[in-house]
Amino acid sequence: MNVIEYGRFGAPHEVCRCIEVDAPGPPGADELVVEIAACPINPADLLTIAGTYPGPTELPARAGIEGAGRVVALGGDITAFAVGDPVISLARANWAERVTLKESQAIKLPAGIDMRQAAMLKANPASAHLMLANTVALKDGDWVIQNAANSAVGRHVIALARARGLHTANVVRRDALVAELQAIGADVVVVDGDDLAERVAAESGGAPIALALDAIGGAATMRLADCLADGGTVVNYGFLSGAPCMIDPHQAIIHGISLTGFWLAPMIGRLSRAEIEAMYGNLAASMTDGTIATPIEASYGLDDIGEALAHAAREARNGKILLTPNGPIR
Amino acid sequence: MNVIEYGRFGAPHEVCRCIEVDAPGPPGADELVVEIAACPINPADLLTIAGTYPGPTELPARAGIEGAGRVVALGGDITAFAVGDPVISLARANWAERVTLKESQAIKLPAGIDMRQAAMLKANPASAHLMLANTVALKDGDWVIQNAANSAVGRHVIALARARGLHTANVVRRDALVAELQAIGADVVVVDGDDLAERVAAESGGAPIALALDAIGGAATMRLADCLADGGTVVNYGFLSGAPCMIDPHQAIIHGISLTGFWLAPMIGRLSRAEIEAMYGNLAASMTDGTIATPIEASYGLDDIGEALAHAAREARNGKILLTPNGPIR
Repeated sequence: MNVIEYGRFGAPHEVCRCIEVDAPGPPGADELVVEIAACPINPADLLTIAGTYPGPTELPARAGIEGAGRVVALGGDITAFAVGDPVISLARANWAERVTLKESQAIKLPAGIDMRQAAMLKANPASAHLMLANTVALKDGDWVIQNAANSAVGRHVIALARARGLHTANVVRRDALVAELQAIGADVVVVDGDDLAERVAAESGGAPIALALDAIGGAATMRLADCLADGGTVVNYGFLSGAPCMIDPHQAIIHGISLTGFWLAPMIGRLSRAEIEAMYGNLAASMTDGTIATPIEASYGLDDIGEALAHAAREARNGKILLTPNGPIR
Repeated sequence: MNVIEYGRFGAPHEVCRCIEVDAPGPPGADELVVEIAACPINPADLLTIAGTYPGPTELPARAGIEGAGRVVALGGDITAFAVGDPVISLARANWAERVTLKESQAIKLPAGIDMRQAAMLKANPASAHLMLANTVALKDGDWVIQNAANSAVGRHVIALARARGLHTANVVRRDALVAELQAIGADVVVVDGDDLAERVAAESGGAPIALALDAIGGAATMRLADCLADGGTVVNYGFLSGAPCMIDPHQAIIHGISLTGFWLAPMIGRLSRAEIEAMYGNLAASMTDGTIATPIEASYGLDDIGEALAHAAREARNGKILLTPNGPIR
């Protein structure tokens, strides 16, 4: 079977190869074998393969943070899954025709879920959900502000916040995105720049905001912090600008603003199995009912990994790039 | 009697005047009148008078964040104080020959305390103590790192940490300070610059550090954050560089570093009267036994306020500038 492997860190489209390896043998007693239907190429995949993000330290390594598929073989101790069940993998190395997972690394999905959307369930929707749920105590009607609001995580934040009865103020870089994000439920959408806090206050009726989600860093962090009520928290989860997050001492000292970081892996590591299953169950339901959906720009087979990675690295895209290791879906 | 007043925000030595006003009348039932022996000129005083720090919004206003003196008159309801008691004022507007305080604004000090040191008890020792005690849980033998370690707060941190069984790593800007801070109990003293984290680790034996105290901002914050163990906290309490605090997203996201601000006024506002009395009682004892002491460079009468403020604004000093509203002490 085919898998994607890289032998050195570097430009993903140069260092990743599609290689043929032995298919997984029969699963161990607590294992299951999954045939991967779809896997997205995430920014974190590109950074991991480039060697600038925590990941495998021994090379060659197999790639792929996310993947969804169906169970094709079960170990003897496994009772919670059946052959044919749709699942997502919580393990890495998912860009492969088949993967062997421990039972604890698989999450069962509802029958009939769209496998292409399901492939994107593990990381971005869970990040959006957990940043809203596990960072600052928020109650019905509260406001949240975020930048990079047009990203996959940003769109999930808008949709999940709205479904929870929260309001969102959304900061974008282009006027063209205002109507688009309002259409998916954004309460306020403003273009980043000077006087951001005044413009957000004008459009939100001056509502106090306790949580800001920052995917950019640099002075954008500081502008977002200016929009917060005293005692508010900025949660940084991305570094699109490549610059350090800035928080002015007046914000930190006088206004009691805090900055923390959000990283999905350790956050999930602190949840129980039951909490993880409940979270992904709820998110899968939000996916099925259309609350959260991620646009897809193109799908590629594993054979075309170079082209797929080059496409994923392009700046101007209108959706995710997917890999479909076992052939096109529908 | 004489008090210091400013009629507009501006350069302190230009806008502050020593004016004659009526002495306080008899105290109300829950008030006491204090004859001020000494008051320091703090950086926060200079910023407040310049209008760049929270303070009086109606002008003219009286100045002076700290002051210590003796009770000279008591209201009828007051039983916890006696005439002659040494006290510090928790109110503002202390640069005066006498002040009238509510009972809740006065803290009784041990008889015989040095009034010049006592005048500097309210702000810096309490800040050092509360940053060590109320931000991150620390246990015997833990390490704390700070920059601007030669400041008044920095020196108190060294002394109070040592008295509590904590170790300090101290970042300074000049080699000349290394021996000086070691002499007052600093475990490690390093000069700020490249490879700060490696040099701190080498000198501290690689001990994990959970708390960093930052009085500088800018890239200095980021260098301090690099010295922290995963999950560590940077507490910013000053802005000597004038630049925003920087925290790299890798620090925030991957290493779980948080940034918070520390401001004494609201922190004390969250303490009970009993906690405030206990804290200042302990700090006064540390002052009496010599654990904490602040060098004094010069003392001025209220008449010489312009000269005193100009002196306080100079960069290179070897101690605090004090005002002695009722004449020289000893």
